[in-house]
Amino acid sequence: MAAPSTICRVTGKTHLERARALDATDPLAPARKHFELPDGLVYLNGNSLGPLASGVADRVAKTVHEEWGTSLSRSWSQSWWMDAPSRIGDRIAPLIGANPGEVLVCDTTSIALAKLLGAALAARPGRHVVVSTNDNFPSDLYAAAGAARLWGATLRVVDPATLENALDDDVAVCCITHVDFRTGVLHDLPGTTAAVHRAGALMLWDLCHSAGAVPVGCEAHDVDLAVGCTYKYLNAGPGSPSFLYVRRRLQEDLDNPLPGWLGHEEPFRFDLDWTPAQGIRRFLTSSPPVLALGALDAALDAFEGASIEAVRAKSEALSQLFIDVVLDAAVPSLEVASPRAAARRGSQVSLRHPRAPELVEAAAGAGVIGDLRPPELCRFGFGPLYLSHEDVAVAATTIVDVALSLS
Amino acid sequence: MAAPSTICRVTGKTHLERARALDATDPLAPARKHFELPDGLVYLNGNSLGPLASGVADRVAKTVHEEWGTSLSRSWSQSWWMDAPSRIGDRIAPLIGANPGEVLVCDTTSIALAKLLGAALAARPGRHVVVSTNDNFPSDLYAAAGAARLWGATLRVVDPATLENALDDDVAVCCITHVDFRTGVLHDLPGTTAAVHRAGALMLWDLCHSAGAVPVGCEAHDVDLAVGCTYKYLNAGPGSPSFLYVRRRLQEDLDNPLPGWLGHEEPFRFDLDWTPAQGIRRFLTSSPPVLALGALDAALDAFEGASIEAVRAKSEALSQLFIDVVLDAAVPSLEVASPRAAARRGSQVSLRHPRAPELVEAAAGAGVIGDLRPPELCRFGFGPLYLSHEDVAVAATTIVDVALSLS
Repeated sequence: MAAPSTICRVTGKTHLERARALDATDPLAPARKHFELPDGLVYLNGNSLGPLASGVADRVAKTVHEEWGTSLSRSWSQSWWMDAPSRIGDRIAPLIGANPGEVLVCDTTSIALAKLLGAALAARPGRHVVVSTNDNFPSDLYAAAGAARLWGATLRVVDPATLENALDDDVAVCCITHVDFRTGVLHDLPGTTAAVHRAGALMLWDLCHSAGAVPVGCEAHDVDLAVGCTYKYLNAGPGSPSFLYVRRRLQEDLDNPLPGWLGHEEPFRFDLDWTPAQGIRRFLTSSPPVLALGALDAALDAFEGASIEAVRAKSEALSQLFIDVVLDAAVPSLEVASPRAAARRGSQVSLRHPRAPELVEAAAGAGVIGDLRPPELCRFGFGPLYLSHEDVAVAATTIVDVALSLS
Repeated sequence: MAAPSTICRVTGKTHLERARALDATDPLAPARKHFELPDGLVYLNGNSLGPLASGVADRVAKTVHEEWGTSLSRSWSQSWWMDAPSRIGDRIAPLIGANPGEVLVCDTTSIALAKLLGAALAARPGRHVVVSTNDNFPSDLYAAAGAARLWGATLRVVDPATLENALDDDVAVCCITHVDFRTGVLHDLPGTTAAVHRAGALMLWDLCHSAGAVPVGCEAHDVDLAVGCTYKYLNAGPGSPSFLYVRRRLQEDLDNPLPGWLGHEEPFRFDLDWTPAQGIRRFLTSSPPVLALGALDAALDAFEGASIEAVRAKSEALSQLFIDVVLDAAVPSLEVASPRAAARRGSQVSLRHPRAPELVEAAAGAGVIGDLRPPELCRFGFGPLYLSHEDVAVAATTIVDVALSLS
C-alpha cells in the first residue's frame, strides 16, 4: 500500500499523517466505542446498512426475554411499546432539524411516501401533478407513480437541472431524495423547497441518505413533509422501519389516506368509524414493530452528545480525505463520480471504474467493504460515528492499489 | 378452588379427571417444549400476543450478532434475508390451506388490507361497493373506508345476519374477519365465500384470529384474498409483520396499488418505471423486516409435525372444557358470550361479567392471564401448542372462584 505515504497536495503531509492528525483532535472519536465492528475491516457501506451498535443486541434480547417472554401481553400497557413510534420519532427529530411531535417511526419508506404523497394530493385538490427527478431512488418513483394513479394525478419525472421549469401551477407536491443514491450529490434543499413553495406546491424530501449524516433543517428551511429510513446512518438494522415527518402547522390539514387503528384518536374505543388523532399520531396505521423499534432506540444512543453539525463536519473531512487519496494517486481508470466540493455531496463518494464489480470484490477481500451499482459505479459511504480518518486513508489506499492491479 | 372436583355433566368425571385424561392422549402435548412460558401462569391471551417460542431468542440473537454485526451488508446477498417474505410465506401456506407461491409476509395487516382491497376494486371497475360487517375488527373497517375513498367506492357495513342481502351486483369485494375478536364467533367461511362469488365479487378474509388455530382451507373453499397477522396464534412477537394471500390464478390480474422496489420484476435493475414481478412477489413493496422475520421463522418451528386439523381438534377440546367448567359452576353473574357449539367459535371464549375489569385483574393476580374488552367482556384464548387441558381446567376454576368472590 503506497498511497498513504504519498504527499497530500492539500496539506503537504502524507495522507496517513494528515489522517492521524485529524483523528487526534476528532471530537467524535469517542463515539466509536458505541459500535461492534469486526476487526480488520473498514466498513464503507453504512449508507446501505449501518453497522451494529453496542447496546442493540442487549436491548433486543431484553425485549424478547423479559418484555415479551416474561411479561407477555401485559407489556403493551406496562412497557414502552405503545408510545414508541412518537417517542423514538422525537429522538430522530433533532437530527433532521424538526421539533418534538413532528416525527413518527412506522411503516416502510415506500408506504410512508404513499401516505404523505396521498395526503399532499388530497390537500391540493385543484392540482394534478407530482414532480420528481430522474435521480430519485427508483422505489420512490414507483411509490409516486402509484400515488399519482390513485389520486388521479400524473407523475412528472424531470432532470434535476430542469426542475424549476417543471414547477407550474398544476403541481401539488414535489418529491426528491436529498442525496442521490448513485453519485452522492446533495440536492439544494433550501433552494428547492423555496422554489416549490413559490409554485404553491408542497415539498416532500426523502431523507434516507441524509438522516444521521447530513443536517436537514426541516424547520429552518420550511420543509413540509419528509420520509426516511432508519437502517442506513441511523444504524437500526436490516429492514428497520421508516420515519415520517409532517410539519406541525400542516398536521391538522392533512389526512392519513391509509388509516388504521393506531392513528385513531382513541384506539381502544374500537369505534366503527375512524376519527383521526390530533397531531402527528393520525399518520400512524398499525401496531408498532417492537423488536425493530427497540433496536433503533438503542442505536440512537450513539448520537447522544454528537450534534448533527459535528457529524457533518467529520463526514466532509472523511470523504474529502478519501477523494484526495484517489485524486493524488491519479489511476487513469479510476474516476471520482461524486462532486469534488464537500458542500455538494452527502456522506458518500462514488468512484467509476470499467471493472467495478472486480474492484468492489477485490477491495472486500482486502478488508474494505463498499458497494456496487452496475455497471461502473462503486459506492463508499462514511459513517462519522464509527470511522476514523486513518480507516478512510487506509481504505482509499487499498482501493487505489486494487485499481492499479486491475489496470 | 372447588370447581375442578365438581362432576362434569358431559363426562361424569370431575373436570380435573377429564382434563388429565385428555392430556394423557394429547398428540400435541410434545409441542409445549417449544415455548418458554413463565412458571405459575396460565396464559390465555395468545389471541392477543402469542408467547415466546424457544428458538426465537437464539435466532434473533444470531441474526443480530452474526448476520448483521459480523457479515453486515453482505448478508443481503449471502443470507436468507432477501427471500424471507416468500419463503416464510410458504411456511404459513399449509396452515391456511394455501399453496406455495400464494403467501407473502410483509407490511402490517391494515396496509396489506389496503393493498388487496385496492387491487380488488381496480379489478372490478364497474362496481363501487366494499361490503364488511359490524363485527369486523375496527382497524379493518378504517382500512376499508380508506380504500373505498381512494377508489371512489362506498363502504357498506352490515350486520353479519343480513350479509347475503347486501351482496348486490354493485359489490366489488367483501371483507370480513374470520373470527369475531369480541365474541370468538367463527364465520361460515365456505358459505360466505360462495355467496360473495355468486354476486360476482371477490372475497377477502382477515385471518388474524384464525391463522395457526383454525383451519381456513383457502384453496378448498376458493378464497380469493386474505390477510392476517403473525403475532397471535403464529407467535412471532409484538408488532410482527402481517401476511397476505392471493390465489394463484388471480395474481396476474391484480395490481399492487402500493408499489415499491421489492415488487419489481428485477429490483436491482433500478428501472425508473415499475414492472411488476410475476406471481405473488408483485405484492411486495419494501425491504423485509429482517429481525421480525427471523423471529417468525423460528416461531413456526413449533408447528412442525402438528397439522392444523390436530391443532383445531385440541383447540375445540380446550375451549369446550373451559365452557363446561363455567357452565357447571353456574355463577349467576358469569355468562358465556361465545357460541356453545365448538364448530361455531374460533380458539377463544368470551365471558360476560358486570365487573369484568375486576375479574380480569383478579384472575391475573391468581395466575390466569386473559384480556378485557370493556365494558363487560373478558376474553380467553387457547393456544393448543402450549396449553394443557389441565391448565385450562385450573384456569376456568380460578375464574369461577374470582367471579364468586365478586358476586
